[in-house]
Amino acid sequence: MTDGVSAKQERREADLLERVVRSFDDCPDPRLRQLMTALVRHLHAFAREVRLTEEEWARGIEFLTATGHITDDRRQEFILLSDVLGLSMQTIAINNEAYGDATEATVFGPFFVENSPEIPTGGDISAGANGEPCWVDGTVSDSEGNPVTGARIEVWEADEDGFYDVQYDDDRVAARAHLFTDAQGRYSFWGVTPTPYPIPHDGPVGEMLAAVGRSPMRASHLHFMVSAEGHRTLVTHIFVRGDRQLDSDTVFGVKESLVKDFERQAPGTPTPDGRSVHGPWSRVAFHIVLAPAGT
Amino acid sequence: MTDGVSAKQERREADLLERVVRSFDDCPDPRLRQLMTALVRHLHAFAREVRLTEEEWARGIEFLTATGHITDDRRQEFILLSDVLGLSMQTIAINNEAYGDATEATVFGPFFVENSPEIPTGGDISAGANGEPCWVDGTVSDSEGNPVTGARIEVWEADEDGFYDVQYDDDRVAARAHLFTDAQGRYSFWGVTPTPYPIPHDGPVGEMLAAVGRSPMRASHLHFMVSAEGHRTLVTHIFVRGDRQLDSDTVFGVKESLVKDFERQAPGTPTPDGRSVHGPWSRVAFHIVLAPAGT
Repeated sequence: MTDGVSAKQERREADLLERVVRSFDDCPDPRLRQLMTALVRHLHAFAREVRLTEEEWARGIEFLTATGHITDDRRQEFILLSDVLGLSMQTIAINNEAYGDATEATVFGPFFVENSPEIPTGGDISAGANGEPCWVDGTVSDSEGNPVTGARIEVWEADEDGFYDVQYDDDRVAARAHLFTDAQGRYSFWGVTPTPYPIPHDGPVGEMLAAVGRSPMRASHLHFMVSAEGHRTLVTHIFVRGDRQLDSDTVFGVKESLVKDFERQAPGTPTPDGRSVHGPWSRVAFHIVLAPAGT
Repeated sequence: MTDGVSAKQERREADLLERVVRSFDDCPDPRLRQLMTALVRHLHAFAREVRLTEEEWARGIEFLTATGHITDDRRQEFILLSDVLGLSMQTIAINNEAYGDATEATVFGPFFVENSPEIPTGGDISAGANGEPCWVDGTVSDSEGNPVTGARIEVWEADEDGFYDVQYDDDRVAARAHLFTDAQGRYSFWGVTPTPYPIPHDGPVGEMLAAVGRSPMRASHLHFMVSAEGHRTLVTHIFVRGDRQLDSDTVFGVKESLVKDFERQAPGTPTPDGRSVHGPWSRVAFHIVLAPAGT
């Protein structure tokens, strides 16, 4: 029962909902019927619970229209909307149920690109991207602790100005690459130390965030996608411990297990591979555990 | 609890939802905070209940994108979507709670136009619209049975080809007008007998209806909007008893109390006002009861 609504009115609203649900009775695809009827039930429950006014409904229609009109081949405002409402992350959670000690998943984001360049163990993904050098190393193992040899690791990140290569207009490929684990399941590479950046916030989603008093900033992160025969593909990030956006990542991607120590190194500190670095650099270890395929 | 989901997984999903809800804690507008947090709770409940897959989520994003791209100044596919999911009608229901014997409301629809021509009592709204002539008469009274004098009645309808005047490209004004009740609260006019027609179904909403096995047809109807000082404005339709779309009106606008007898008259039957009509005509009575303002 909704507060302050008469039993007769409750019944009228419930009857209407039932008519809508029954309109899907002839749907030939049982899964589609399940999705549509559940969507209808939850949408109506929302409207009835908040006693949605006709003006608020009209404002919602305007918001969706503006979101549709700003969306094009280079910008996907509906994904952004799903992200800031936590729906993208909830979908990830639903489809990547925790498995033992396997590494947790997080949002894929819109900046992955197929056919990234391959680098050798210890290679550099930055390809000229601005930023403080960062040494990343670790291992890939299965859920029983065995090393996974030849796992494909895709890594990508924003530069220190907060932009991915594909956000520039010059077709550069930078701060993205793939590499493979060695016979002991080890990997390592040079990248740049992640820094915080805002999601695109000059559209309807940005307006909504401003209206509700939320920041458009994402917590600093480095993307990983790790795949190996017989294992569930892992899409995740690592985050920087101490980053002040960790508790307010605007797409809710942060999980405690993915927050890592990026240890700041003073200028002149010897590097793991003997490379000469001018100025400070950082290092982080990330040991990845893959769940079995089909889990 | 969702079937087949571990307690640990339930907790992860519920924790994520709570983080999203808390992100609205600083919203300066309490009503906006209520709307956004309720929306988030219901959206997440939907995704969790159906165990939404990543492919289904992506299909939803595509659907919303296509809906946004077909929407323009002349076509509002998001309103159509809200209509066929029953959300428009539920919003009407929520905001027009039943009051005693007051006439029930239904959807406004997209075809009302301001500044319709005025006609006298017994005048003709059709202005050349194709269709079988229909005599409409009735009264407007308050909830205690007193006649309402000078109530403004706006009426509009599709022609027998299923189109409203504004759907033609020639700026015609036809099958719409307004008139006022007389000193006894009576009104009457000539229009055309309503016929069924489909909502625009060549876009994403039409595709969805086809996929779920639903018809795009609306039940035959005649629109009314009745306003008078001191009374709640009534937006409604009357429907044609016997119409085969009554049980499957694709926007769920039909209410039993709004289904009326449109009595078919044989050619040559004398008309109420002595007008000469060639061929058959119909007549219907619609007695309107207005709720008090503020109810």
